[in-house]
Amino acid sequence: MNKSKPKAVILLSGGLDSATVLAKAGADSFDCYALSFDYGQRHKAELQAAKNVVASLGAVEHKTLHLDLGVLGGSALTDSSIDVPTTPTAGIPVTYVPARNTVFLSLALAWAEVLGANDIFIGVNAVDYSGYPDCREEYIKAYEVMANLATKAAVEGHKLTLHTPLIQLTKAEIIQLGIENGVDYGITVSCYASDDQGKACGVCDSCRLRAKGFEEAGIDDPTRYQK
Amino acid sequence: MNKSKPKAVILLSGGLDSATVLAKAGADSFDCYALSFDYGQRHKAELQAAKNVVASLGAVEHKTLHLDLGVLGGSALTDSSIDVPTTPTAGIPVTYVPARNTVFLSLALAWAEVLGANDIFIGVNAVDYSGYPDCREEYIKAYEVMANLATKAAVEGHKLTLHTPLIQLTKAEIIQLGIENGVDYGITVSCYASDDQGKACGVCDSCRLRAKGFEEAGIDDPTRYQK
Repeated sequence: MNKSKPKAVILLSGGLDSATVLAKAGADSFDCYALSFDYGQRHKAELQAAKNVVASLGAVEHKTLHLDLGVLGGSALTDSSIDVPTTPTAGIPVTYVPARNTVFLSLALAWAEVLGANDIFIGVNAVDYSGYPDCREEYIKAYEVMANLATKAAVEGHKLTLHTPLIQLTKAEIIQLGIENGVDYGITVSCYASDDQGKACGVCDSCRLRAKGFEEAGIDDPTRYQK
Repeated sequence: MNKSKPKAVILLSGGLDSATVLAKAGADSFDCYALSFDYGQRHKAELQAAKNVVASLGAVEHKTLHLDLGVLGGSALTDSSIDVPTTPTAGIPVTYVPARNTVFLSLALAWAEVLGANDIFIGVNAVDYSGYPDCREEYIKAYEVMANLATKAAVEGHKLTLHTPLIQLTKAEIIQLGIENGVDYGITVSCYASDDQGKACGVCDSCRLRAKGFEEAGIDDPTRYQK
């Protein structure tokens, strides 16, 4: 390990986007500290996928934090009484988890400060962003301003940078970037309703976006589907 | 319960400041939803104190979220290998928990969105702020800007307000405000090193600030000390 590399915290869900971000951060010569959340999501298979992605791409350390967002309710992803939609819906979908990226970035910020890292990577995307407000560029910019007032590190002059390498890419471009940087998408899980083995439903928002991405990139879809 | 009252999420540690904030929010005619965190802090007695404060002052609901910040390390408050200082120190003290208010506000924001609440109260204080960067007014303002870009509620036009009723008060003024609004400070726990019964050490930063506050307010200190 090259000791002169800067450290970065990478938010890693185990899905297609964040796996690409981990590969990109490694390619950009950061020492990667991957952070995943067990937040009461239905699709637990993504946590195993995150471990598999780290095993495949490498990271200095990988932590999975428990965080019971389900206690707060309000999302189809954490509340089994709300169905995950299987057809496109207008507006912000019920799979939106209230303030999720704000919560995840805050814990990434805490770990970054402990590590002495000045860089955080997150795989948000403003093109295929599914209508989530916390995936927009203006939100990320405002978060960065706040973060640079929030910490002892910032007060002492260590500027924090939020990296969003996917924010302006289409799903097809994200896939191409990942392929160039060695991502094995067969081990990533994007589905909101995957089974225990991480096999995808093929019909939720996330599955549909992902399948369209492989099609547009002209790359065989390696996703393992339930049927 | 008056159904027309607006809902507010109140960050409640069980200490002097946040108990005052809960009383103030109630006095300001909000329906209060109190949120506490079991974040691996040494001073667990404050969680029982938070329950006692809610029993005394009232709240529509009180949730305590588990959040293992100790896994991330870096603070005397969550890491038993770092001693809590018993004399004043220069700069930001080791009791600083990395990004703590950012993490707590993010979870308050998530709950507020689920509840349909547009108001969050936090007991930060810029006068006796002990050198914590996330207690400053500029930080709070930046957080509010970010929060108003983060959520589905904000995108749909429901502006979020962060209330910091203590930010410009001295500890003595905070105590006076609480007394006016019915706070029983004998049941609050501020000490960083309290025992299982919530009895205070009397020598940590937090104990010293608190004792000085009662002295300056000319009010008998109801704190239960260990000796």
